[in-house]
Amino acid sequence: MRLILVIGATRTAEIPGISGAGATTDGRQHTPAADAEIIEYGGLVRAPILPVSPSGCPTPAVVTRAVRDLVGFQSLTLAAGLAGDTAAPTVRVAPEPGGDIRDPVPVPDAAGILRTARDLGRRLPDDEVMVAESIPGGTTTALGVLTALGEPYGVSSSLPTNPVALKREVVAEGLASSGLEPGAAAGDPGRAVGLMGDPVLAAISGLVLGATQSGTHVTLAGGTQMIAAAALVRHAGCEAGVGLATTVFVARDETADLHDAASGLDLELSVTDPGFDGQAHPALAAYARGEAKEGVGMGGALVLADRAGVGMRSVRDRTITVYEAIRTQHEP
Amino acid sequence: MRLILVIGATRTAEIPGISGAGATTDGRQHTPAADAEIIEYGGLVRAPILPVSPSGCPTPAVVTRAVRDLVGFQSLTLAAGLAGDTAAPTVRVAPEPGGDIRDPVPVPDAAGILRTARDLGRRLPDDEVMVAESIPGGTTTALGVLTALGEPYGVSSSLPTNPVALKREVVAEGLASSGLEPGAAAGDPGRAVGLMGDPVLAAISGLVLGATQSGTHVTLAGGTQMIAAAALVRHAGCEAGVGLATTVFVARDETADLHDAASGLDLELSVTDPGFDGQAHPALAAYARGEAKEGVGMGGALVLADRAGVGMRSVRDRTITVYEAIRTQHEP
Repeated sequence: MRLILVIGATRTAEIPGISGAGATTDGRQHTPAADAEIIEYGGLVRAPILPVSPSGCPTPAVVTRAVRDLVGFQSLTLAAGLAGDTAAPTVRVAPEPGGDIRDPVPVPDAAGILRTARDLGRRLPDDEVMVAESIPGGTTTALGVLTALGEPYGVSSSLPTNPVALKREVVAEGLASSGLEPGAAAGDPGRAVGLMGDPVLAAISGLVLGATQSGTHVTLAGGTQMIAAAALVRHAGCEAGVGLATTVFVARDETADLHDAASGLDLELSVTDPGFDGQAHPALAAYARGEAKEGVGMGGALVLADRAGVGMRSVRDRTITVYEAIRTQHEP
Repeated sequence: MRLILVIGATRTAEIPGISGAGATTDGRQHTPAADAEIIEYGGLVRAPILPVSPSGCPTPAVVTRAVRDLVGFQSLTLAAGLAGDTAAPTVRVAPEPGGDIRDPVPVPDAAGILRTARDLGRRLPDDEVMVAESIPGGTTTALGVLTALGEPYGVSSSLPTNPVALKREVVAEGLASSGLEPGAAAGDPGRAVGLMGDPVLAAISGLVLGATQSGTHVTLAGGTQMIAAAALVRHAGCEAGVGLATTVFVARDETADLHDAASGLDLELSVTDPGFDGQAHPALAAYARGEAKEGVGMGGALVLADRAGVGMRSVRDRTITVYEAIRTQHEP
């Protein structure tokens, strides 16, 4: 089992109020790099700050790393349009960040990214992989892709109150500037992700296509961004069995049609609950309030913990340990 | 413990007869990428062929990966002037391959590479790292650096008969074109590696300086290229304890003054013997004939096996398994 984390950036994240993946718009550009460093090293190396939501909820990378400490899975990070440097080792599959989806062509090299990631996916030696993401603004591009493909599913948010109206407005502007009607890119995933997506979605869908073609079982570890990735894969004609592992926080979100989407896209759904409700520690309590919800493979990592017989109490304890270690890392 | 593999290229490797790290001059440019993939995945992913010496001795990456399978250490690959792509995840610390050391300035950005690698080394979270290399032509640039620094030690070779006269001639030409007398760069490691070295040596010496500054213990896992790296570090004024872990194949090589060098540069020397003498399997027998000798952290990996209580018989068996798996990977 290998967890493949795909990190990147989209200018869509710069729209005020659109994302909770980072406390500020400026800080947010470092979130994917910091997430990858946390998974790789258990702490920050080059990244300047621990990503937190505007109200202080820590990145789900902390939970995924906690599980890694407990069960020891392998990882691989793909840089799909990363803004800035990271000390985490990466394979580069996209050269530059995606544009704002209100631009006509936010991912000009979508076809090239799909192809590069597909070739890599085909050659991976693993029987099984989980695919995770970190890209601020990613649920908005996911909604853009779903709309372009004509899929009816809604998307979740890393904010406690999903800015649904804003996302719909951004997507409507994006469709207009790209000259697309809703559903006009059905059956053409390269066009959908090139005109309305981001480089991470392009890379994930290519990776899944290649991996499934060579007999590797794929579980998409994430929330509604992975619904968009799965839709791209299905619109490319892939009929392979694909899993979707996410958290109860996404499943509870009424703005996301998780069960309908998993069923409509023929995904084997696993929903995990780390038992953060009623926990006193602020890093856990924020999740119980509906912040962050998912990302950086959290739901998939919880599946791995469960499979290894590691209880959620151990995951919670280790999550607090990882969080406190990072938080105090730069203190004197 | 983390094994940090630093991979890159130098045009010096294109000089006919200079290197055994790859069967042909053309194939040789893929050797570092293939080595990194073998350490990361246990097989080739993007790299087209298993690196072998001109007479068929497989890359020492096979031994290092065998030990990784048995004892499970973490790894990190730094790309220091890599030619071409690799599917192994890397942190890029140098932008382009080094030139031929017969050019006036083969590593124009030596100071920048040293700085980037030093900053990374300083921030690594590890208590202990081993540093390994893969760069064809690396013993010739190592001789260039040692000569520029005024260090009297000779270098080994991945070929069974060390082309010592050719290396000396190349180094003499390099010194002349760089306007350097032997020893003229003493105390100035940036100048020595910039005028007579390669980007991998620049990155390794920066990494060691940074890591030791932040209290991480470093073992240089390699042969006489690591003697050159250690010399750069000592000429930068570093007095920290540094280890050198290498194989009996380098220790036996009379053209390399291993013990003198380790003593002169104040390195804690470990010499390991994987017991390849008298083994029937051609992949092991070639080492016993003095081919390859070291590289890709082989000597360091054997130290890790020993430390974990894994016997050399297990290492040999696993080496054959890894080798056969890669060799048959692309067969129908």
